[in-house]
Amino acid sequence: MKELIDHIKKNEQTYIEELIEFLKIQSISAMPEHNDDMKKCAQFVSDKLKQAGLSRVEIFTTEGHPLVYGEWLGAPGKPTVLVYGHYDVQPVDPIELWENPPFEPVIKGRKIFARGATDDKGQLFMHVKSVEAYFKKYGSLPLNIKFLLEGEEEVGSINIEPFIKSHTDLLKCDTVLISDTSLYEKGVPTLTYALRGLSYMEIEVTGPNRDLHSGSFGGAVANPINVLSEIISKLHDKKGKITIPEFYKDVAVLTKAEKENIKRLHFSETKFAKDLGVAELQGEAGFNTLERIWARPTLDCNGIIGGFTGKGAKTVIPSKATAKISMRLVPNQEPNKIAKLFTKYIKSIAPKSVKVKVSFLHGGSPCMIPLTDKATISATKAMEKAFNKKIVYMREGGSIPIVNTFVKSLKASAVLMGLGLDSENLHSPNEHFDLNHFQLGIISSALFIDEYSK
Amino acid sequence: MKELIDHIKKNEQTYIEELIEFLKIQSISAMPEHNDDMKKCAQFVSDKLKQAGLSRVEIFTTEGHPLVYGEWLGAPGKPTVLVYGHYDVQPVDPIELWENPPFEPVIKGRKIFARGATDDKGQLFMHVKSVEAYFKKYGSLPLNIKFLLEGEEEVGSINIEPFIKSHTDLLKCDTVLISDTSLYEKGVPTLTYALRGLSYMEIEVTGPNRDLHSGSFGGAVANPINVLSEIISKLHDKKGKITIPEFYKDVAVLTKAEKENIKRLHFSETKFAKDLGVAELQGEAGFNTLERIWARPTLDCNGIIGGFTGKGAKTVIPSKATAKISMRLVPNQEPNKIAKLFTKYIKSIAPKSVKVKVSFLHGGSPCMIPLTDKATISATKAMEKAFNKKIVYMREGGSIPIVNTFVKSLKASAVLMGLGLDSENLHSPNEHFDLNHFQLGIISSALFIDEYSK
Repeated sequence: MKELIDHIKKNEQTYIEELIEFLKIQSISAMPEHNDDMKKCAQFVSDKLKQAGLSRVEIFTTEGHPLVYGEWLGAPGKPTVLVYGHYDVQPVDPIELWENPPFEPVIKGRKIFARGATDDKGQLFMHVKSVEAYFKKYGSLPLNIKFLLEGEEEVGSINIEPFIKSHTDLLKCDTVLISDTSLYEKGVPTLTYALRGLSYMEIEVTGPNRDLHSGSFGGAVANPINVLSEIISKLHDKKGKITIPEFYKDVAVLTKAEKENIKRLHFSETKFAKDLGVAELQGEAGFNTLERIWARPTLDCNGIIGGFTGKGAKTVIPSKATAKISMRLVPNQEPNKIAKLFTKYIKSIAPKSVKVKVSFLHGGSPCMIPLTDKATISATKAMEKAFNKKIVYMREGGSIPIVNTFVKSLKASAVLMGLGLDSENLHSPNEHFDLNHFQLGIISSALFIDEYSK
Repeated sequence: MKELIDHIKKNEQTYIEELIEFLKIQSISAMPEHNDDMKKCAQFVSDKLKQAGLSRVEIFTTEGHPLVYGEWLGAPGKPTVLVYGHYDVQPVDPIELWENPPFEPVIKGRKIFARGATDDKGQLFMHVKSVEAYFKKYGSLPLNIKFLLEGEEEVGSINIEPFIKSHTDLLKCDTVLISDTSLYEKGVPTLTYALRGLSYMEIEVTGPNRDLHSGSFGGAVANPINVLSEIISKLHDKKGKITIPEFYKDVAVLTKAEKENIKRLHFSETKFAKDLGVAELQGEAGFNTLERIWARPTLDCNGIIGGFTGKGAKTVIPSKATAKISMRLVPNQEPNKIAKLFTKYIKSIAPKSVKVKVSFLHGGSPCMIPLTDKATISATKAMEKAFNKKIVYMREGGSIPIVNTFVKSLKASAVLMGLGLDSENLHSPNEHFDLNHFQLGIISSALFIDEYSK
């Protein structure tokens, strides 16, 4: 494999230049005004799969953004790997906090800055390039490969779900390889074995049928912002536990082995707090920070708006106030069930003086992968070789709801070979990706293909 | 006075056409992009004072928007009335709820729709026209008259305050006549004898130093929206009382006579709730709706914003969340003192996991006028004649902070001769003014000049 690795290293500049083109495309799936960019981006990805050497590449239209599929099945009798990734990105607000425009990639030192750099364009591109390198160097792969790249991961993967379920023959594989998670630390090879799920809700509180003068009406009628605030304040108790009845019922308890593994990582809460610029951390009592992020369900307001929010002062009681609230779920919580419990609880605590509408915007299941799986063992060997360091197994607070769908629908295993870093500002201004990890990711991907084919 | 009243009635159409021109000017004092409109509006008002027949009219520049002054002092030995009003208006958001553009006045039946129609352009214009009618009909007034019209009432009357204090000779008068309040009911002559004051605050909560992915960080760090919501929820107890320590200390208790007066008005809470479209009213326990609005201090969120507020779902923990919160004050609460108590309390309940900044945006003192005052008696007679009905004395939930400044600095009394209606959507979309009240207001103003000159 040495010559393949050398080839990858030698071509780094070209790979980076291609990645820059990829990052320039404003593929924000949440914003309808970027629909054309989404199409452009799907075409770009499709072209790159062809260039890599796949024998069949196809863009599948959906009711939302397109899916890009590719395959090379020239190794009969050998295992099949399905690479999954997403070419869509998060919105860029607050735009004023970006040091460089989010869609004009800039390299500073060994970091590339752009929306989508680490989540997930940079990471999915590693596998495209490892396959390309393989074909360039050996003319073929030692196993069969498929790609399925979606454009709706940041908006709930709505259309890929039914696609997977209705295309199980097309997508049939032994394992699904995904790079959309993080390394435990810079330069430390890491495999993620569990992900949190998600129930994303919206609450709209309506009070009076019109905006009112707070002088002429203040004190006589429920204020939707005050009511919404009170509802939100009732979602946690003083110990940071979520108060929704039966919320914790299905939560898988952390095993002793997992707790000990976390202890061995010597995670520094002080450094974590300092990096975030907070004087004190806050979370569920009885758990440390990694346990809270990796293995405990949580609830966060993702957005709130109501009344006058411009500069200065307007003395108004608004008619409406709205909040977006999401819950991160852990095995074995079920998103639909949690959404129902949430809705029921909100309705039960809302006063009669307002109308409350609760909507379930989207959800995703949590997931756990056994460490004894053949693909996990191959990925461990590949990453340890690429990094020349011992692997770390971790859980992850984020969600890739699609993992469960793949595992269940295709009866395949999964490998979460993430090369990002939590500090790379994913979903925030100044998102970036470490170019050393980009190269190590391409090498790890190539070595995984080699190991898993044995 | 009959011929004067006839003259006013005959000229109604002209007065309305002039009012329409006045309402077309986009004099939103809170928005710097309307600074030129503010100047244009000051010039319009100044021209109308000249046209009315005043002998001296002057525009005083300030650090904010201009003040328009006018006077006619041709009745030595007779009382002097100072008319106060404001030519600035509230912002128009949410613009999409207006049935007609807010600065393109439309008359439907006997109502004129436009931003500022009732608050306060329509009302201040009544006095300009009554003076004009007097001059047209008799060539002079039976007393001395001054006008002081400001362009910053909706943003806290910042610059008129020092102007009054430094121009007490210029503004010297016996009473200040103000029309910026409401009639108790359509067609019922009303004088307001007490106003609430205001302390308008802003709270900014900062958590992590950047927006975070709610998956990778959710549960490990304080979320500024959740914290802000909790802070807001702690500002009222279960009985609707404000929890800020010492908040109620200086509150003047409602007298037995006032409580009985309120009872006699037969205010319908059912109708009030129905008009607002709410199933249930909500407020401080132990008080009825009119008592809550007129005589009790209250606290309302006027605006809140944080995180992702667009369409769809973004899984972010925002770095900041902000709320605008105002308190309506009653005699003898003092805005600066209340602002300090508020700030101290917020700081005391904020967790260490966030930074909290509290700002005092502006304030105004509450006010109470004795019903035995000569000007009040003259105004009572004038309105009862104009309307041919018995007067109602009421308090008002809104604030005209400037009233206290006039009374104290000029050692004058005050008359709050409001011709608006609470149902006329002031500060809201589709603001309007009843044209019958516009005419009755011009007549009441003229009759007041006559009565008070005796």
